[in-house]
Amino acid sequence: MTDLTLYSYFRSSTSYRVRIALNLKGIPFKYNAVHLLKDGGEQHKTEYRKVNPIGGVPSIAMGDFVLGESLAILEFLDENYSNCPLYPKDSKQKAIVRQMCEIVNSDLHPLTNLRVLQYLEKRGFDQNAKDEWSHHWLKIGLEAFQKMVVKHGGKFCFGDQVTAADLCLIPHLFTARRFNLDLSPFDRLLKIEETCLAIDGFKKAHPFSQPDTPDEFKTKT
Amino acid sequence: MTDLTLYSYFRSSTSYRVRIALNLKGIPFKYNAVHLLKDGGEQHKTEYRKVNPIGGVPSIAMGDFVLGESLAILEFLDENYSNCPLYPKDSKQKAIVRQMCEIVNSDLHPLTNLRVLQYLEKRGFDQNAKDEWSHHWLKIGLEAFQKMVVKHGGKFCFGDQVTAADLCLIPHLFTARRFNLDLSPFDRLLKIEETCLAIDGFKKAHPFSQPDTPDEFKTKT
Repeated sequence: MTDLTLYSYFRSSTSYRVRIALNLKGIPFKYNAVHLLKDGGEQHKTEYRKVNPIGGVPSIAMGDFVLGESLAILEFLDENYSNCPLYPKDSKQKAIVRQMCEIVNSDLHPLTNLRVLQYLEKRGFDQNAKDEWSHHWLKIGLEAFQKMVVKHGGKFCFGDQVTAADLCLIPHLFTARRFNLDLSPFDRLLKIEETCLAIDGFKKAHPFSQPDTPDEFKTKT
Repeated sequence: MTDLTLYSYFRSSTSYRVRIALNLKGIPFKYNAVHLLKDGGEQHKTEYRKVNPIGGVPSIAMGDFVLGESLAILEFLDENYSNCPLYPKDSKQKAIVRQMCEIVNSDLHPLTNLRVLQYLEKRGFDQNAKDEWSHHWLKIGLEAFQKMVVKHGGKFCFGDQVTAADLCLIPHLFTARRFNLDLSPFDRLLKIEETCLAIDGFKKAHPFSQPDTPDEFKTKT
């Protein structure tokens, strides 16, 4: 395959998902940092909008082929790099893994991402109101996700193998901690997190170990 | 395959996506209405939470197998009913269709759905503020989506065949109209809408033609 470039921001949970996939599958890639805050946000620049029309991270580029949206990227990588499959082969099982991914991707993450919090701040939400908002959606999502894990999980979110569901959960727990959410009701998810974070591919993808991680965060690893 | 039950709400844009897929593929199904407003919302009832842990619609059930999240459902249906494929076979093309779907599914829809607007209302957003909020996210998404269509579209959102991207766009335009968004900048998308709405499978899936459509809306068709 052509050389792969990843457009990523160290702290973006959706970029974190794709970094884990690239590491687990052993796909070499060039890291292209997109700073979401510098100069009003590099994601808004014309050059980046050619890569990703909505200005989100992550994106990947392989020659002329550019692709955005983390779940579309995970599926694409999985279809093209068979090493360490991210979805079960059985169609019903695969569907459940996709459902788990979408709980994080479409029910939760969109409500707590940077641009939404920036909007709420402009409309008068102070830090407390923003925290309350984030905690509300994070909790709803993690509760639903944990129910899925109780029904379908094992050592990992779905059964005893890493799947895309783990790639969505782990970054989401990182975000939940950033927002100081009390994670004690989610013991089943924390156990899976512990298992995942012992795996090299997850470790290397951590937000505090990236080329664009600011020094003050690097010390926290 | 086992008999299929669809849990749906007439006006839910995500249910609308799945109804189109079922119709296009000619899959018979039992319609099980979940009223999102009656008695505080039937989606919150214990019985329904067993079907869908986050209480969203749509869900499908086939015997013991239950599945939520509209895009997971579309992929599942496509893998199991080959008639009228919803994704291109080529992996890169398929990835682009998935990206288009996710722009609607994860960038836009989550910000304008019922529970989010209900939350904002409780936190002091009046009708104007809610409209401004909805228009803001709808516009960002439709602009990005239209750019994708300009690059990849033809008669439909991707090329000259119906794909899952059309199944996401059409319900989203319906929602945008409900919020009185000015759609005049989206002429390319409106042209595709016209083409889609002439197709039986789309027509039959329309929110104003469902078993749970209230009489006052049925008159609008």
